[in-house]
Amino acid sequence: MEELTRRVRTFAEERDWQQFHTPKNLAMALTGEVGELVAELQWLTPEQSASVMSDPDSGARIKAEIGDVMIYLTRLADVLGIDLMEAALTKLADSALRYPVEQARGSAAKR
Amino acid sequence: MEELTRRVRTFAEERDWQQFHTPKNLAMALTGEVGELVAELQWLTPEQSASVMSDPDSGARIKAEIGDVMIYLTRLADVLGIDLMEAALTKLADSALRYPVEQARGSAAKR
Amino acid sequence: MEELTRRVRTFAEERDWQQFHTPKNLAMALTGEVGELVAELQWLTPEQSASVMSDPDSGARIKAEIGDVMIYLTRLADVLGIDLMEAALTKLADSALRYPVEQARGSAAKR
Amino acid sequence: MEELTRRVRTFAEERDWQQFHTPKNLAMALTGEVGELVAELQWLTPEQSASVMSDPDSGARIKAEIGDVMIYLTRLADVLGIDLMEAALTKLADSALRYPVEQARGSAAKR
Repeated sequence: MEELTRRVRTFAEERDWQQFHTPKNLAMALTGEVGELVAELQWLTPEQSASVMSDPDSGARIKAEIGDVMIYLTRLADVLGIDLMEAALTKLADSALRYPVEQARGSAAKR
Repeated sequence: MEELTRRVRTFAEERDWQQFHTPKNLAMALTGEVGELVAELQWLTPEQSASVMSDPDSGARIKAEIGDVMIYLTRLADVLGIDLMEAALTKLADSALRYPVEQARGSAAKR
Repeated sequence: MEELTRRVRTFAEERDWQQFHTPKNLAMALTGEVGELVAELQWLTPEQSASVMSDPDSGARIKAEIGDVMIYLTRLADVLGIDLMEAALTKLADSALRYPVEQARGSAAKR
Repeated sequence: MEELTRRVRTFAEERDWQQFHTPKNLAMALTGEVGELVAELQWLTPEQSASVMSDPDSGARIKAEIGDVMIYLTRLADVLGIDLMEAALTKLADSALRYPVEQARGSAAKR
């Protein structure tokens, strides 16, 4: 993860793109990439979406979109000074408390 | 990264949530979390967004939202069988070719 | 439509919110509201989503979210000087050319 | 508004696209279009975004994206049986109660 963070940072610095990379702008870029990812899945049934990677064209596009989303998320966390991995693990621990196994089993209800 | 992937997977399996975790549904969940993250930054100026982590309340909310986005992105990549880190590094290499340093320097123009 | 545009504009002006209502900020607000709408549908099957309005609680939340999305879209179009209705009709005419009935029938393929 | 609703419905029916137009799928399509709109504004300063329509190319793209967002929002409301205009006016009345003029003036704080 540190490796990716560093490479994305270098990529931006080499192009003098730090000026564009405010958290606000990066959150918008993340939105755009998530939108492209969602567009790949929008007309599929849930079942079709589950086997979408077996189609080489769709699979390649989706992998590229997932890559883009991860790049912007990594960059956004970096400029905010957030450890992405730690933030996810902390949130997962919170969710474990909010959704106890016994009560949450098989239910999609929000808490 | 493998650690997070495994923990998120276990979290879902313990709650019997695999049935909800189609790529289609997870892409929608990712959208919802990105929307919450964007909402934290929407009325800020770019300058305010750059120092948003110095406010303890906003900072905690943003870290939690970033964590949520990372959790769903990790889970989505896992059910699709995509290596998130590899997908990001591959896409970054592609972008390096599409945006050569000399031509891209200081410019936000899309290619 | 002009009525809604005028009411949303008055709502913003009475609160001195024009300062926040740049196209950039409004596009982010629109993202946040669409995220909330998507979150209401994320774990439903397509079939469940088709009858979601028959549940009074979900139905009320979805109607409110749709209202929010429409409010921000109307406001964004207004500050950009775009006639929302005309923009939609023009785009629909473009799409009719890009997706001729005979070729597009029953197919979700993008063109 | 009824005119647009009817035209979008006819457009879908002529192409036998009702099968794809579940609320779930349409919410995803809306996400994709909002993502494209956001992408047009992501690297602009708020000030640049305020004058974006004076650039013919950006202006045309943004008008087209706004049109797309409106088309999918209209279609989504139609399949859900929601009156888009009424939903927006009702929500605006709710917001007027939640954000009284005297207290909300000049403040972007959420309530």
